[in-house]
Amino acid sequence: MTTASPPLETSSTPWTKAHILDAASLTADEIMQVMAEAQTFAEILKRPVKKVPVLRGKVIINMFYENSTRTRTSFELAGKYLSADTINFGVSTSSVKKGETLIDTAETLLAMGADAVVIRHSSSGVCHQLANYFGGRVSVLNAGDGFHAHPSQALLDLFSMLQRIDTVKGKKITIVGDILHSRVARSNVHVLSKLGADVHVVGPATLIPVGFDQLGCTVHTQLAPALEGADVVMCLRLQLERQKSGLIPSLAEYSQLYGINRERLMQYTSPNVLLMHPGPMNRGVEITSDVADDPDFSLITHQVANGVSVRMALLHLVLGTHTQKGDELYETIA
Amino acid sequence: MTTASPPLETSSTPWTKAHILDAASLTADEIMQVMAEAQTFAEILKRPVKKVPVLRGKVIINMFYENSTRTRTSFELAGKYLSADTINFGVSTSSVKKGETLIDTAETLLAMGADAVVIRHSSSGVCHQLANYFGGRVSVLNAGDGFHAHPSQALLDLFSMLQRIDTVKGKKITIVGDILHSRVARSNVHVLSKLGADVHVVGPATLIPVGFDQLGCTVHTQLAPALEGADVVMCLRLQLERQKSGLIPSLAEYSQLYGINRERLMQYTSPNVLLMHPGPMNRGVEITSDVADDPDFSLITHQVANGVSVRMALLHLVLGTHTQKGDELYETIA
Amino acid sequence: MTTASPPLETSSTPWTKAHILDAASLTADEIMQVMAEAQTFAEILKRPVKKVPVLRGKVIINMFYENSTRTRTSFELAGKYLSADTINFGVSTSSVKKGETLIDTAETLLAMGADAVVIRHSSSGVCHQLANYFGGRVSVLNAGDGFHAHPSQALLDLFSMLQRIDTVKGKKITIVGDILHSRVARSNVHVLSKLGADVHVVGPATLIPVGFDQLGCTVHTQLAPALEGADVVMCLRLQLERQKSGLIPSLAEYSQLYGINRERLMQYTSPNVLLMHPGPMNRGVEITSDVADDPDFSLITHQVANGVSVRMALLHLVLGTHTQKGDELYETIA
Repeated sequence: MTTASPPLETSSTPWTKAHILDAASLTADEIMQVMAEAQTFAEILKRPVKKVPVLRGKVIINMFYENSTRTRTSFELAGKYLSADTINFGVSTSSVKKGETLIDTAETLLAMGADAVVIRHSSSGVCHQLANYFGGRVSVLNAGDGFHAHPSQALLDLFSMLQRIDTVKGKKITIVGDILHSRVARSNVHVLSKLGADVHVVGPATLIPVGFDQLGCTVHTQLAPALEGADVVMCLRLQLERQKSGLIPSLAEYSQLYGINRERLMQYTSPNVLLMHPGPMNRGVEITSDVADDPDFSLITHQVANGVSVRMALLHLVLGTHTQKGDELYETIA
Repeated sequence: MTTASPPLETSSTPWTKAHILDAASLTADEIMQVMAEAQTFAEILKRPVKKVPVLRGKVIINMFYENSTRTRTSFELAGKYLSADTINFGVSTSSVKKGETLIDTAETLLAMGADAVVIRHSSSGVCHQLANYFGGRVSVLNAGDGFHAHPSQALLDLFSMLQRIDTVKGKKITIVGDILHSRVARSNVHVLSKLGADVHVVGPATLIPVGFDQLGCTVHTQLAPALEGADVVMCLRLQLERQKSGLIPSLAEYSQLYGINRERLMQYTSPNVLLMHPGPMNRGVEITSDVADDPDFSLITHQVANGVSVRMALLHLVLGTHTQKGDELYETIA
Repeated sequence: MTTASPPLETSSTPWTKAHILDAASLTADEIMQVMAEAQTFAEILKRPVKKVPVLRGKVIINMFYENSTRTRTSFELAGKYLSADTINFGVSTSSVKKGETLIDTAETLLAMGADAVVIRHSSSGVCHQLANYFGGRVSVLNAGDGFHAHPSQALLDLFSMLQRIDTVKGKKITIVGDILHSRVARSNVHVLSKLGADVHVVGPATLIPVGFDQLGCTVHTQLAPALEGADVVMCLRLQLERQKSGLIPSLAEYSQLYGINRERLMQYTSPNVLLMHPGPMNRGVEITSDVADDPDFSLITHQVANGVSVRMALLHLVLGTHTQKGDELYETIA
């Protein structure tokens, strides 16, 4: 595999956002600033000592109301590599169970001196609510809210593509699977379409929301035309409980109609296709192991690695107004 | 809101206690030493980099046998700001489930090199037991034991008052609610009465322990005389399960008789009254939102913020005999 | 109690192992290298500031698929004392529940930049599987897998013995209890027999695996001959659920036949006998309190303390090839 650096076409506009709430509200320019920053951190993560002192003394609180080891660990590592203190505000042990309102919890975090809150919640919009409450006092980073948004995932997906292709502009990028319940799909469509990609989504009609094409993508229910000539294929995780709720007839039928395997990639896509999956995978359901583990065109493990760099970039951008930038980034802690 | 600094009338007596077990055993002089120390840390927490290196290399173990996000996070942050290493000794995963005795757990913590143990437990007296066992080898900080004591809460409550009034001496301070089950009430009565406050408690007769007046406070079962002329009103959280156990007839009736709202504060208390609540609140039950969120007389979010400063003070006092004091406090880590 | 330093007969062979998978694959020379390294760290842990910067910037992930506060905390402290960042990859919140394969989890840890993974798992062989997958990229430390191995426990047991006796060579060391289900017993037999100890095991016939003598020890089902002249007696924890599964008739009968008490030690063992237990103890079942707490011959709390030193040694040896050694060990962080 050859790795191209992403284009570091940073603008001279300074970063102004205090929060990362969704992909829809990021401008193309901001997206590319995140890419450039993430590239810096990706280089730092290759050093023997990966820590930089830029966020020392800052407190980052992880509030995960839904289970997620990958995303939580990725944010926790990103914070630690930046020398911040990270606290896991466990939900099972939290006052939430005692009936405290979200705003009282927010007030508590603010009062304790949190600088940033990374939150995953089953309700869409919780991050906006918190950010409204905090204003500029505490940064909110959305780590996935309901079916709404998962912006850091879309940004790491973009970063992973840009390690292999110079630009997504004009590229056909196809997202396959349960579009209805996927905040990953939504955030990817926003990020990619802002950068001029030709985004397609495909899945069973029962798993595609009405009017989804209005987000700026082409909607398919048949796999073949969706894959036809695709430069990037992104599989989504199929929540196995969808079958129980009657949205798909059977896992076997789903695999047969929408599962991604080598034969289909070879038959339909561009010869230089790249394959992605946000993980964790249901091997043999939405993706087969032979393509998932392909060292040449599968970006799946790169996505995980890039998650740390991209989240370092996001934390540094939103918290960096309080810190000196520049030299510190190039200094490792002794 | 105007903020007065607490009076830093520190004595020349050096700190000698290795443990913070309850409020009853703290002298007035020790209480004021904690206040002075907390004031120093409150200043430090206003800095952009809040960490000070005074407890670097020290190990603080949080053992919470009852759920508490607020208190645990507050102690964890306090430890991290002091550069200590903090470990959450999760109870659900602990050997306690395997039937290990408390003393064997204590022995394990001691052997592993813990410098301090912060413990919350449903049994009154557990902290004393542990402290007796440890002697001067490991410091024990009581984060709430049974219905017995919650000294750091009472100290942060005092600190919050002293940010607004010069002294509690002679002030009428009224604690409202479920006195029977409240370690917060007990610890506050001890701290406040030692400093010469005129402490009153009020609640349903079923929720006031027999002989409580012997702690040095006036007991009421009617709200009006308890609030009459009060300088500080402290609401306690009503555990909603009290209703099920028959101790209160209904939440609505409780609110009607003992709920704190604007009308009652205006009708009875001093015009400069301060309102407090240890949190988390049952809004609409023991307190209404309009007074809880009043920016002028409600100290509730200040209480949370002060919790971190006061716990830094306590950790520093009990562990500080092993560390150099003085200059280090005014040095931030580079 | 007199404490002899372990013999620091280090060889000039450099350490080469990237993983600590089991006791069986460690050579006698490697075992003594661990002892020497642990001795260095035991000295460091006596300092007021116990942290050394040797693994700063390294990431150690604790994956405990079985509950264990002692071992997890011991490894976590070992990592923190070495200035590594430690992450608890909680199993209850992990993707494992979402049906992710072990290898996908491994791939994720690798991609996120983990330097070492400490793993406890109910399946024997999981650590080998992970280590095969990682090769030299991430170090795996077995914190107990199934009934197979618990190498750090056997090494800390050896270290604890060597604080009291010059060598285990020729010493009669008797392991008492449920040998069948004990990874501790297996790993101890491997370590001790490699160093020339005369290892005996004893327990009910139902709790001794067929052919266990082939590991290099003498098997007994009667306590008296097993204890006869023993220099070290190591009690194992009796899992109380063994009774339910019919492997022992009753706890009372087990205690009567195999419980270790003062009378039995005095009647049978060497007058300088040392008593050990990996903890947590069932006091009154496999061991009585009067001998467990004996300050002279019981090593039980020393075992816990030594666990931290030995785990620091293991982490430093497997990760140390990436770090400068030598001076840094003798430098505390300022």
